[in-house]
Amino acid sequence: MNSFNQLQAVVEHEIDAYKRSQPVTSLTESIHYLMGVSGKRVRPVLTLMGAELFGGKASDAIHAALAVEIFHNFTLMHDDIMDEAPLRRGKPTVHVKWNTNTAILSGDAMLIQAYQILCKCPENKLSRLMRLFNESAFGVCAGQQMDMDFERRADVSVEEYIEMIRLKTAVLLGCALDLGACIAGASDAQMSHLKEFGECLGISFQLRDDYLDAFGDPIIFGKQVGGDILADKKTFLLIRAFEKASDDQRLILSQHNGAVQDALVKVEAIRSIMSDLSVDQETLDLSSSYYNQAISHLDALELPAQRTFPLRQLADYLLERQS
Amino acid sequence: MNSFNQLQAVVEHEIDAYKRSQPVTSLTESIHYLMGVSGKRVRPVLTLMGAELFGGKASDAIHAALAVEIFHNFTLMHDDIMDEAPLRRGKPTVHVKWNTNTAILSGDAMLIQAYQILCKCPENKLSRLMRLFNESAFGVCAGQQMDMDFERRADVSVEEYIEMIRLKTAVLLGCALDLGACIAGASDAQMSHLKEFGECLGISFQLRDDYLDAFGDPIIFGKQVGGDILADKKTFLLIRAFEKASDDQRLILSQHNGAVQDALVKVEAIRSIMSDLSVDQETLDLSSSYYNQAISHLDALELPAQRTFPLRQLADYLLERQS
Repeated sequence: MNSFNQLQAVVEHEIDAYKRSQPVTSLTESIHYLMGVSGKRVRPVLTLMGAELFGGKASDAIHAALAVEIFHNFTLMHDDIMDEAPLRRGKPTVHVKWNTNTAILSGDAMLIQAYQILCKCPENKLSRLMRLFNESAFGVCAGQQMDMDFERRADVSVEEYIEMIRLKTAVLLGCALDLGACIAGASDAQMSHLKEFGECLGISFQLRDDYLDAFGDPIIFGKQVGGDILADKKTFLLIRAFEKASDDQRLILSQHNGAVQDALVKVEAIRSIMSDLSVDQETLDLSSSYYNQAISHLDALELPAQRTFPLRQLADYLLERQS
Repeated sequence: MNSFNQLQAVVEHEIDAYKRSQPVTSLTESIHYLMGVSGKRVRPVLTLMGAELFGGKASDAIHAALAVEIFHNFTLMHDDIMDEAPLRRGKPTVHVKWNTNTAILSGDAMLIQAYQILCKCPENKLSRLMRLFNESAFGVCAGQQMDMDFERRADVSVEEYIEMIRLKTAVLLGCALDLGACIAGASDAQMSHLKEFGECLGISFQLRDDYLDAFGDPIIFGKQVGGDILADKKTFLLIRAFEKASDDQRLILSQHNGAVQDALVKVEAIRSIMSDLSVDQETLDLSSSYYNQAISHLDALELPAQRTFPLRQLADYLLERQS
């Protein structure tokens, strides 16, 4: 069993090889740029961990891992256009550094490349791997569509919100794990538990991220606190605040919605209502509940603790960002 | 052997079933709309013909055919954004009828769906089919990138132009045929000839389309003549006109390039130089030459004339639009 850092190094090495294997054209330049604006490589590491969990070798699952990471970066490239985001991990987004057409086309090429690389997986597993990958990939698009639809809706329920973050964020974590597990020969029942582990972990992570965006320490959180509030983003916190609010509180929430005003005043006003309604604690509690569900699915695999240790460690790492 | 019209009906029936099988969501609505703005379904029919050519049944290749048609429509959806096209086959494009974000995301979902449907093909052929599909899909993106790059370049050569239209238009025709042929058990050599047939046909078609855009009868051609000239599009005709022009003619061509002026005056001035330089006839000759190459690859298959008849008929149909 390799540690997160060891597997991360394996992934980085493979990404370097992938970049070197391609000619530098105007199409690949922006792809290499985005792939180089390096994140934590959580998803491909999950694929390698999924393989090692069932006695497989990381090298057997490396193509699937790379496919997942390229797919993830494809979604970032297109989401950044849709969200008009100027920065990604502190660097200019592709549609800003190049232009929107380049970002559309390079994203398309990345999605195709993800499939090209997935096809390097063992042929007798290809059909199964493709089905797993396709289902999650389509789910991610459906999640992004829900997220965009929510912007124009005032009646988003908690259930709908959880389903949106499950599709947009969590299914790819479950898929990443299952691709590795499938390659290593896991059973259907094992893959089902692993998928649930990944999805619950993803939902737990996203809920905590929502909390931190409103209540985290800006220095430790690493970005401006209150960004979601300023953008009137319908997060779990805002949806619950509207649900629990008194008439007076709801009036204040509504007045701030879409209003152009002093940023600090708006953030403070809404945070104050959220705190009064204990929505902050409720968010952390729900995040913990999903974390516990995730761990229960890992336990259900009934594997030696040593085997599941790297996944537990990764789960703790993801969830123990500044609380 | 079924005729083009018979196979077209098979494809339409399958597209209807595909649309009915999906829930109507904000994601699928625009997909169904574009798929309903029906074209001639040439590509999926080619897949079915590719199967029948080698004794396969159309029904064996129907999933591959649908995957090709969905992929083609994905490229239309994203190309229309990049080209800022307001209309597609006389109807509003998706990014106009909905918005750019919907067109980006629905296009992404279509690309994934194309793979989902391709995965319904026989499992023992999947790896091969995927490789064929992936290579062409990436080629189409590379062709679109070349086309966009050409807009900013003054030194595009004829060779580069032919490579661009090969990638952007022709490879998918070759791929469509080969997918069907592969499913029907064609040999590598047979698939190679069939691919060349499709690519040469595609290049021949595109060159003729370039000619018709400048010199066709607007009533029979079905769209405004001179559109490429007005858009300063670097077609084969314009590239060759610049290459063959005298200094005086080149000056006139350059003066009109990018100029805002009376449309008729510009179109007539450039067409007149093209005619004087026999670029019109040269384009038709090159188109014919590719057509002949296409047919020679079909002949090289050494199949009974009855087998290849539908493909010859389709080739003639595609190339005998108003000349």
